[in-house]
Amino acid sequence: MASQPNRHPSPNHYDIVIVGAGPVGLMLSTCLARWGYKIKHIDNRPEPTATGRADGIQPRSLDLLRNMGLKSAIMAHKPARVYEVAFWDPPKNGKGIVRTGTWASCPSFIDARYPFTTLLHQGHIERVFIGDLEKNGVKIQRPWTIKGFTSNEKENPDYPVSVELEHVDGTFKESVKAKYLFGGEGARSFIRDQLKIGIKHKDPIAYVWGVMDGVVKTDFPDIKMKCTIHSENGSIMVIPREDNMVRLYIQIASSSDPDFNPRKTASVEEVQASAKRILQPYSIEWERVEWYSVYPIGQGIADKYTIDHRVFLGGDACHTHSPKAGQGMNTAFLDALNLAWKIHAVEAGFAKRSVLETYESERKDVAETLLAFDNKYAKLFSQRPPAANEVAAASDHSSNQPSQEEENEFIKTFKESCEFTSGYGVAYKPNALNWSPSHPAQSHLILAHPESTRLRPGRLLANADVTRVVDANVVHLEQEVPLNGSFRLFVFGGNPALPGQAQALRDLASGMAKKGSFYAAYALPDADRVVSHHERHNPHSRFFTVCTVLAAPRARIEIASDLPHLLARYREHVYADDRWDRRVPDARAAAHAKMGLDQDRGGVVVVRPDGYVGIVVALQEGGATVDALNAYFGAFVTKELGGTQALL
Amino acid sequence: MASQPNRHPSPNHYDIVIVGAGPVGLMLSTCLARWGYKIKHIDNRPEPTATGRADGIQPRSLDLLRNMGLKSAIMAHKPARVYEVAFWDPPKNGKGIVRTGTWASCPSFIDARYPFTTLLHQGHIERVFIGDLEKNGVKIQRPWTIKGFTSNEKENPDYPVSVELEHVDGTFKESVKAKYLFGGEGARSFIRDQLKIGIKHKDPIAYVWGVMDGVVKTDFPDIKMKCTIHSENGSIMVIPREDNMVRLYIQIASSSDPDFNPRKTASVEEVQASAKRILQPYSIEWERVEWYSVYPIGQGIADKYTIDHRVFLGGDACHTHSPKAGQGMNTAFLDALNLAWKIHAVEAGFAKRSVLETYESERKDVAETLLAFDNKYAKLFSQRPPAANEVAAASDHSSNQPSQEEENEFIKTFKESCEFTSGYGVAYKPNALNWSPSHPAQSHLILAHPESTRLRPGRLLANADVTRVVDANVVHLEQEVPLNGSFRLFVFGGNPALPGQAQALRDLASGMAKKGSFYAAYALPDADRVVSHHERHNPHSRFFTVCTVLAAPRARIEIASDLPHLLARYREHVYADDRWDRRVPDARAAAHAKMGLDQDRGGVVVVRPDGYVGIVVALQEGGATVDALNAYFGAFVTKELGGTQALL
Repeated sequence: MASQPNRHPSPNHYDIVIVGAGPVGLMLSTCLARWGYKIKHIDNRPEPTATGRADGIQPRSLDLLRNMGLKSAIMAHKPARVYEVAFWDPPKNGKGIVRTGTWASCPSFIDARYPFTTLLHQGHIERVFIGDLEKNGVKIQRPWTIKGFTSNEKENPDYPVSVELEHVDGTFKESVKAKYLFGGEGARSFIRDQLKIGIKHKDPIAYVWGVMDGVVKTDFPDIKMKCTIHSENGSIMVIPREDNMVRLYIQIASSSDPDFNPRKTASVEEVQASAKRILQPYSIEWERVEWYSVYPIGQGIADKYTIDHRVFLGGDACHTHSPKAGQGMNTAFLDALNLAWKIHAVEAGFAKRSVLETYESERKDVAETLLAFDNKYAKLFSQRPPAANEVAAASDHSSNQPSQEEENEFIKTFKESCEFTSGYGVAYKPNALNWSPSHPAQSHLILAHPESTRLRPGRLLANADVTRVVDANVVHLEQEVPLNGSFRLFVFGGNPALPGQAQALRDLASGMAKKGSFYAAYALPDADRVVSHHERHNPHSRFFTVCTVLAAPRARIEIASDLPHLLARYREHVYADDRWDRRVPDARAAAHAKMGLDQDRGGVVVVRPDGYVGIVVALQEGGATVDALNAYFGAFVTKELGGTQALL
Repeated sequence: MASQPNRHPSPNHYDIVIVGAGPVGLMLSTCLARWGYKIKHIDNRPEPTATGRADGIQPRSLDLLRNMGLKSAIMAHKPARVYEVAFWDPPKNGKGIVRTGTWASCPSFIDARYPFTTLLHQGHIERVFIGDLEKNGVKIQRPWTIKGFTSNEKENPDYPVSVELEHVDGTFKESVKAKYLFGGEGARSFIRDQLKIGIKHKDPIAYVWGVMDGVVKTDFPDIKMKCTIHSENGSIMVIPREDNMVRLYIQIASSSDPDFNPRKTASVEEVQASAKRILQPYSIEWERVEWYSVYPIGQGIADKYTIDHRVFLGGDACHTHSPKAGQGMNTAFLDALNLAWKIHAVEAGFAKRSVLETYESERKDVAETLLAFDNKYAKLFSQRPPAANEVAAASDHSSNQPSQEEENEFIKTFKESCEFTSGYGVAYKPNALNWSPSHPAQSHLILAHPESTRLRPGRLLANADVTRVVDANVVHLEQEVPLNGSFRLFVFGGNPALPGQAQALRDLASGMAKKGSFYAAYALPDADRVVSHHERHNPHSRFFTVCTVLAAPRARIEIASDLPHLLARYREHVYADDRWDRRVPDARAAAHAKMGLDQDRGGVVVVRPDGYVGIVVALQEGGATVDALNAYFGAFVTKELGGTQALL
């Protein structure tokens, strides 16, 4: 068991060595530390990020941080919140710039809990993770670097990775053994280079940008908004920050310039002078500059994320792109989360080692989509202002939705990309974890057709408010299971008063309790004796947390008598689907309706430990529901499951 | 200015000496420390509360804590949240107990942002305040006590109070001079005794109760809810707590017992045995007892809260009552808040000294109401279970709203009292601060009639969501001005596209800017030069923060061109009333509608620094709006105001 610290043969044996304490390394480390793994985590910087770098937390990442219990520590820094993006362009006639439109950065069709981007200095975010790591006994070793590593599973099947570490001044060295090595060292990854993994560059067009964080005095009205400004004097992106700061991205050179030089640079004063020209007729003065940097936009993607599924890469080591869509940190978080739960599933004995292969396939596909988007977005952003007749006619400010004719390509790209930039557009493709018609699990109960459920395997669970029965608290269903590394089984029980529904729940529970079911096969043998009765999430098994949602008012639900014992044991995960929701105003059971499930008959939703839907199965009397679930899990777990044989 | 620390003649001169670091003393100290006052704060306990005592934060108090920026630190302790109360009684036939009903603890008609009671150990709450005090340079001196004091305004008009302080072990002594002395020492107040202020006891009926905090194992289904349980074996109140704890209040003796003895006591084991009998047929076992205490219920109220308006009392020193309605800490907070802003208004030179007289009149009236309620509530709670025919017929759980016939008197009292217990029922009576037809301000523009506005002087401002124009953030309007000691002027501008509305705003601003207006009379003479352009709340004056709310979509509002300069200067307090609200689904401008203001014509709402409405005035072209405001403020400020003469 990963939670036994002394199970390693010696003090220099670790479950994982993590190199780099930026967003990707910290997220991986934090997850694995919470789940009981022994970690060696190093970073070559003496301290966390002091200024600058990434700062945008997308809505979906905020969901994740809340699920980890870290959101409030982030929000305590009073970050800026971007709800809308404003577009500024040259006016049809005359000089200067005018606002040609605004657009919600996370429009309501996305149904986000937090429909805004959170802007906060990366150092604050890193420190929140570091504080959490320390609670779990992990201290980042600084400033240390990696000097070499080997990986050989045949020679040493238990700890195949050997790693040489060194203090950056060369005074101290350490040799450690590990089950895994993770490279989260950023774009210039030593580990990637050693593995001879190449970078594919996506586009020859290049730009040089300056980025400046500071405090300004200006009469530009949208200085607290995210803005993209095109003027005949150049382009700027404005991003509000905490503590009255603002970040400006200013274009310094473009490969379309006649004298383009990718090493072109500019001083703080030159960039400020350029910003002043672009913002005319508005004035801008700097009271303080906190950070300034010049960088060329390079877009690249690593050919591989791993070679042997022991040494992995993630974050900027795998994909680099322009920072302006605010995707870097968010993609890094999701890389790490994706890998973390799969390592856990394998090392805790639940999943076959082959699930590790889905890390690269799932995350590289997301990175490809990100780069394609970023490329399009950055290109548009870096363009010279379009000709006057291309520019939006002075928008009608009465509407957030300019008509198609009014939209230039930039705005169109931006709008199309809202779902993607907010983090909800990520969709993992079919594989052993995400059901599809070609998945080994086949059953008429699998709800796979658009008319059967709105949930899609590989996509996030929909948000829904429900009432927790045990204490009548109104809660966010999708947040009820913390990031505990377990699969989340959401049993939507439908209307318990209808004939057959109670029996369907009893049959589900007895099927799950049967020897050889996906659930019983991984239950602790003596759970009732060894697990505290206060345990909310994992009373029987480390690998499952079970939530039951009934389409009935809270006051009509008696957990002990209405639910079979297995479901009732998760007594703090029994919910009444009795909250009104504006998005489904006529539904009797809004959570059922938002999932696209029948409000009377319900269904069973399997959600992966990272929050993405794995499969949706109908809830019926008899054994077929559990058979379908056995078939789904049977495709990737270590044990042969009861019902699988019959189905295949 | 209070913010100049060296303005006192010597190090042993203070603005105020505060005795007692429970909720009332800490709230007072925290407010005054933030506003720059020099405080000597002592407590005779060596440390904050370790276990037990008050633990219920009512919805209105949570609003206040959020307004102070302290809510998230409280919520970080993961307190229990009570959304509903369950009533358990003997069944109509047979033995044991059955649930006869449940009721929302803060029903939706109250429109609370946080419709639940927050349960958290008082020590955690105290430490949040202590942390905030330390940020402002105030450290509580422990364990120190007060040995004596005198107060003589004639002899020493500047520092009339002399206080003798001593370490509890008598080793050290200090003599200090102060402008004020505050007794927040609890029910056994030395200061109250010295002032020879009597306590009026409200009721001869007495009960003895045991209170026990602990962790239990039970099959009682509502152990995570607030419950009142009446059985033939006695009565219990159940209150959930953080960290899997539960508090039980168990009746030990009643004056209706034949052998009643108010000094009767009971051991932990006796109380546990009694609880087991009451909860039958359910079982309960204690895994851990954290705190246990026995106390008689005594209800009393101090005859006076002050004698000379220099030495004040608050909190339990003024009113004691049963803890079961969870009112103690909340009433203490509001006592302190009420006094704090009035001391500030007087000491900063804004208000006449006579506003201090409203502390006792406002808060004693609230305490009288609380005691009348508590008395009724406690009496019912302590009663023997009602006869079977009085007990609610087995409630229809399908509805949270049992029919009138089904309700016994206890449930009825409880329901009637929801508004009061949630903290929103407090209504201050007419006086110089709360406009009424007998107030010196008289104008046809004052919106005093039920049909003109839903807001009532002496009541809290209604909640409303609006969009902040400068950054498009969706915000809670009532929370937008932090607890800064300033009056909050909410200018609801109506529909700016209608003829006359823009002119009305211009006339308001120019009237406010006129020498001798309530606003200009207290503006900093050189504000534009000495106040940072980043100052959001008090760019012109310490005594006012001005918010403007326009009934228009955000994208149509240009602050610089649509608003007169005075209002535009509060650029982070300009809002679009463009959010849909379920409570006024058909409104075009929901915030205007929730205030009961005309959605086209708006109005001006003056909110006291503690969040209670002072007056509501129509917004009209010409000088009458400012005249009416001048007349309102003229009744209690130190300077003679321009328009007052003409009106009276």
